[in-house]
Amino acid sequence: MLVVMKAQATPEEIQAVCDHIVEMGFRPHPLPGAQRTAIGITGNQGEANRGNLESLSGVAEVIRVSKAYKLASRDVKEEDTVVRFAGSNAAIGGRNLAVIAGPCSIETRDQAFAIASEIAASGAQFFRGGAYKPRTSPYAFQGLGLEALKIMAEIRDKFGLRIVTEALDNETLDLVAEWADVVQIGARNMQNFSLLKKAGRLRKPVLIKRGMSATLEEFLMAAEYVMSEGNYEVILCERGVRTFADHARNTLDLSIVPALHHVSHLPILVDPSHGTGRRDSVLPMARAAIAAGADGVMVEVHNHPESALSDGPQSLYPAQFATMMTELEKIAPVVGRHLTRGVSVPAAAGE
Amino acid sequence: MLVVMKAQATPEEIQAVCDHIVEMGFRPHPLPGAQRTAIGITGNQGEANRGNLESLSGVAEVIRVSKAYKLASRDVKEEDTVVRFAGSNAAIGGRNLAVIAGPCSIETRDQAFAIASEIAASGAQFFRGGAYKPRTSPYAFQGLGLEALKIMAEIRDKFGLRIVTEALDNETLDLVAEWADVVQIGARNMQNFSLLKKAGRLRKPVLIKRGMSATLEEFLMAAEYVMSEGNYEVILCERGVRTFADHARNTLDLSIVPALHHVSHLPILVDPSHGTGRRDSVLPMARAAIAAGADGVMVEVHNHPESALSDGPQSLYPAQFATMMTELEKIAPVVGRHLTRGVSVPAAAGE
Amino acid sequence: MLVVMKAQATPEEIQAVCDHIVEMGFRPHPLPGAQRTAIGITGNQGEANRGNLESLSGVAEVIRVSKAYKLASRDVKEEDTVVRFAGSNAAIGGRNLAVIAGPCSIETRDQAFAIASEIAASGAQFFRGGAYKPRTSPYAFQGLGLEALKIMAEIRDKFGLRIVTEALDNETLDLVAEWADVVQIGARNMQNFSLLKKAGRLRKPVLIKRGMSATLEEFLMAAEYVMSEGNYEVILCERGVRTFADHARNTLDLSIVPALHHVSHLPILVDPSHGTGRRDSVLPMARAAIAAGADGVMVEVHNHPESALSDGPQSLYPAQFATMMTELEKIAPVVGRHLTRGVSVPAAAGE
Amino acid sequence: MLVVMKAQATPEEIQAVCDHIVEMGFRPHPLPGAQRTAIGITGNQGEANRGNLESLSGVAEVIRVSKAYKLASRDVKEEDTVVRFAGSNAAIGGRNLAVIAGPCSIETRDQAFAIASEIAASGAQFFRGGAYKPRTSPYAFQGLGLEALKIMAEIRDKFGLRIVTEALDNETLDLVAEWADVVQIGARNMQNFSLLKKAGRLRKPVLIKRGMSATLEEFLMAAEYVMSEGNYEVILCERGVRTFADHARNTLDLSIVPALHHVSHLPILVDPSHGTGRRDSVLPMARAAIAAGADGVMVEVHNHPESALSDGPQSLYPAQFATMMTELEKIAPVVGRHLTRGVSVPAAAGE
Repeated sequence: MLVVMKAQATPEEIQAVCDHIVEMGFRPHPLPGAQRTAIGITGNQGEANRGNLESLSGVAEVIRVSKAYKLASRDVKEEDTVVRFAGSNAAIGGRNLAVIAGPCSIETRDQAFAIASEIAASGAQFFRGGAYKPRTSPYAFQGLGLEALKIMAEIRDKFGLRIVTEALDNETLDLVAEWADVVQIGARNMQNFSLLKKAGRLRKPVLIKRGMSATLEEFLMAAEYVMSEGNYEVILCERGVRTFADHARNTLDLSIVPALHHVSHLPILVDPSHGTGRRDSVLPMARAAIAAGADGVMVEVHNHPESALSDGPQSLYPAQFATMMTELEKIAPVVGRHLTRGVSVPAAAGE
Repeated sequence: MLVVMKAQATPEEIQAVCDHIVEMGFRPHPLPGAQRTAIGITGNQGEANRGNLESLSGVAEVIRVSKAYKLASRDVKEEDTVVRFAGSNAAIGGRNLAVIAGPCSIETRDQAFAIASEIAASGAQFFRGGAYKPRTSPYAFQGLGLEALKIMAEIRDKFGLRIVTEALDNETLDLVAEWADVVQIGARNMQNFSLLKKAGRLRKPVLIKRGMSATLEEFLMAAEYVMSEGNYEVILCERGVRTFADHARNTLDLSIVPALHHVSHLPILVDPSHGTGRRDSVLPMARAAIAAGADGVMVEVHNHPESALSDGPQSLYPAQFATMMTELEKIAPVVGRHLTRGVSVPAAAGE
Repeated sequence: MLVVMKAQATPEEIQAVCDHIVEMGFRPHPLPGAQRTAIGITGNQGEANRGNLESLSGVAEVIRVSKAYKLASRDVKEEDTVVRFAGSNAAIGGRNLAVIAGPCSIETRDQAFAIASEIAASGAQFFRGGAYKPRTSPYAFQGLGLEALKIMAEIRDKFGLRIVTEALDNETLDLVAEWADVVQIGARNMQNFSLLKKAGRLRKPVLIKRGMSATLEEFLMAAEYVMSEGNYEVILCERGVRTFADHARNTLDLSIVPALHHVSHLPILVDPSHGTGRRDSVLPMARAAIAAGADGVMVEVHNHPESALSDGPQSLYPAQFATMMTELEKIAPVVGRHLTRGVSVPAAAGE
Repeated sequence: MLVVMKAQATPEEIQAVCDHIVEMGFRPHPLPGAQRTAIGITGNQGEANRGNLESLSGVAEVIRVSKAYKLASRDVKEEDTVVRFAGSNAAIGGRNLAVIAGPCSIETRDQAFAIASEIAASGAQFFRGGAYKPRTSPYAFQGLGLEALKIMAEIRDKFGLRIVTEALDNETLDLVAEWADVVQIGARNMQNFSLLKKAGRLRKPVLIKRGMSATLEEFLMAAEYVMSEGNYEVILCERGVRTFADHARNTLDLSIVPALHHVSHLPILVDPSHGTGRRDSVLPMARAAIAAGADGVMVEVHNHPESALSDGPQSLYPAQFATMMTELEKIAPVVGRHLTRGVSVPAAAGE
């Protein structure tokens, strides 16, 4: 259920409705909008008595949300969610296109800085790098761990880039949340409900990659797990699904972009690097993602892809990344967007 | 095998090599290029003796083509194939973007003319309309047949639009070849090898839609069936594949566009109408197709989609089609293309 | 719609109802059952007036068939369809298990006879062998054609085995129908609607293989195309679908067997040879097919698989086939079936 | 790498080799076989010097294992793994067929006991019941948790049934390992590498369900994660994969059974309940699984499926389960197996 407050409802009225929902045994999720605040209600409501709610002060209407996902639904929140980063102009969602770039894995401090320097120069706002790697083989390189997180924190300090990196489990979740700006939940963990719930208790944005065979509804239900715990800063990321097709590592399903925008207010990024697994397909598919309406892209860039410890064949050279930025910048206005290069401290935030 | 002729080889030398190949029991396929002519050799060659060929006059070298597809391969013909239409500037392949539009089925002369008028006004060069419909049910509307072909011929005369329509079998293949400009082989017939061979004996361009679970190699082998019979004007068209995903009718696999361009010289179009089955996804995916490097798009447009006899839910309104044209025109230069609106008689052809 | 006749309805009453249906502009399909005759009605009926029909003499009731497939539906015909072969005890459907075996392609008369001799000795009732091969490559061996059909006719004469072989197109359809006992429509032609309609005008049983990405409904609609033309002897055959799984050539979808039996009266066979593409998986999956309730299996057997012109790696050795027969014979009674070995002339037929 | 010891190697020699491997910086995995002991070596070996190992006392040979999975491979351990349960004749793997049955979720003590009583009477050796449920929706019933584990421990005491239940994360892993006999890792967690490693440190058998789009190699790599930590009692379970097919909830991929047996020594079960999602398909597919060579089945049984809190439509009625047992018992000997009903205390264990 969703309680829609009147446009002129006061903070006290909103709080009173929330308190009332708690008394009813459910959980309130106040979701401020441009015009009005809506309050999502979650919990096993069954045939909950809605009568009282409608009579509370400041309430405009109480509506039933029929979809399985509630808080992730556009029925509950009409405006696009924009995830902002304090002290900078970096944002994910809305009119701005976000570009997240960096190596698959942090291998050394030198490697990470060299790549960060290149992508910052080309205007990316976010740096990605694996500290904890989900590897198919227990015998493969599993990431530098905390050392990698510290290297990325230095990169943020030096280049202003916001840091996106993956958490694999409860232990690494806390560490990643401590050191990074966006906590990534990987495709293999998209239905690790325990991890999603814990991510919902963080107060850091969470980027969820689509599982290899997840439907749109399952993808949004993963977001719902995070949101149901009170963390509404969720970013979705398409990264290709498993099919019979063998000309690419995965089949990048760009049609989920307009389909998601239709039913959800959450931002949706596209990862053409994992989505294709082929360097020569990354640029075409990054352009296609933006043209399809994606809120940004996440790409792998490496200064020496041929000697990368993981995912070399799909990593862009820095010069290719620079070309990509130029191309995306040109496509952006066709879809009513703009690509702001670089991370600057907003004037207002400087005070 | 492939015989590469010297740049200065004469027509007589080329003919002599072809004759020699016939004598060897194989089939020669002379493929003129910008710099040189190459001669593809098909037939079950086994351990064919190549010795003689290299010693013939005008021959630069004889090379083995290791891929299963030969004539469709970029190894055999490096330059992009451009399919041109005599007496007009319409073209598929190369720098120009092709736009094919029209209703799923020709229902009445009035309907067809109304739609053709709209899409011509927006600048399409090609009109599509089903005369013979491959329907899952034997009890569903199967198309107007010859009557539809005649209506489309009138549309060509009136609007200058080139006609693209599907042939279902041998009988309709001859009729379609007689009345239309491009013969379409549908997804369900992509491995109807008998029909492909017969299409290979036509001297009309053939547009092959990707089968619902065809790999890239199988798709090119369908083209190879047509080309092996001597018809080199083949156009490929991605239209979505079957997967578990349920947010769209099919999963549009745009990553096959750069993958195909990498290995083949044939033009590749994208059909976002069948590829998504949802009107609200057609524009985003049409833009994405062009951004991914496709040579054009094929879309369904209907003046009254809500009462269409087939595929109404995926048909664009004429106004949406006009918007699409404007958007594609803006994306084209980012990928080194241009969208020439309308069909004009080239000056040179006027003489 | 379906007209259910009273148990005691006379042939004249049935004929009168059929005539009436023709007058209404539709097509009647009288389907005799053990207890009563039902008459399926096909054609674009829309809001057909059923009133008159119910008042005709001998009519018990008129019911609407809501599924897309009508004649293939168990709603229309409750008893299992059993396809019988005049002058023998061979049958497909019902309590008996059918075993169809033979090489992928007929390569030589000697090869075909050697294999036929082995499989007849092990008790198969049907011989399969490709005369016309649908090959992915136009340059691959395409089958011996008419010569192969004649060899198989000799095999029928000598061993009593009934012949199953594939027709690729209209021309080969007529030839196959002339020489063979069962006309096979291959997976790639499952939605070649033109060919299906023509097969519907034959009076020979038609075996339809499931398309590589066909849903259950599409599979039955292919059968419906054949049946709508008046040929009710349709046999279905599961042969694996396309998925991401790479441990077998296709993913054999045995769960379609009970699902089909639930909604359709048509017999359903399973082809574990194409379904797995691996000799070492054929026996396990043949056993599994029978255990799942299939009406029989179709397997490839070759006397020298290592030198077969096609599909060697999935062909059983004759000794393996003999083992398979023994194993299937043991599983049969668990599912209420029996495996009658060999083809004998029924006593009644000898008169 | 794998060190194969001589048949007559002493425990001291084996220990000395293990110590040597630890000194080299790797991890030894002694794997006793019927004839000889092999010692798997894991760790990032790169170009490890094998020279010394071959010269150690008792070593027969040192061989390189080329597959990505090592300890799960039949190259490393030729004999089938049989997981035994102290104090009973229950076993998974080998000649015996294992049957695991019970409700999707433990709902109440009464429900669980009623079902356990039925399945014990029919001869199952293992009871399954969800205590912690991985639910797509955060708002759905999540299981009774510890209370359910305690109910199942009572069921073990009363009926002798061994308990199989799922662990969702680290916390529940420890609880499940404490109370149950087999720790299940669900399909959604098949690549939760952190959980797999922790399960590898348990000394309880681990049952891993195949992920919805996992390849055979990825499935075995999940087992390898558990085994690489020293827990070699791993049981695999096929439960259907995601495909386009819509006649069942998932596509049960039985062909993975012979393919797994070919390359791995681990037992492989089949879950036809999740694999089809349809009660009427469970029996046919359970029979098919055993006929295909599976080491057993895992099925859902409920006394009141129509009011089950989860998965009612796919749960068998107790009478259907009894029928299934009878049918599997008959198929078992065809594949060289037997179905021992019930759990008895072996004579030897009585001392």
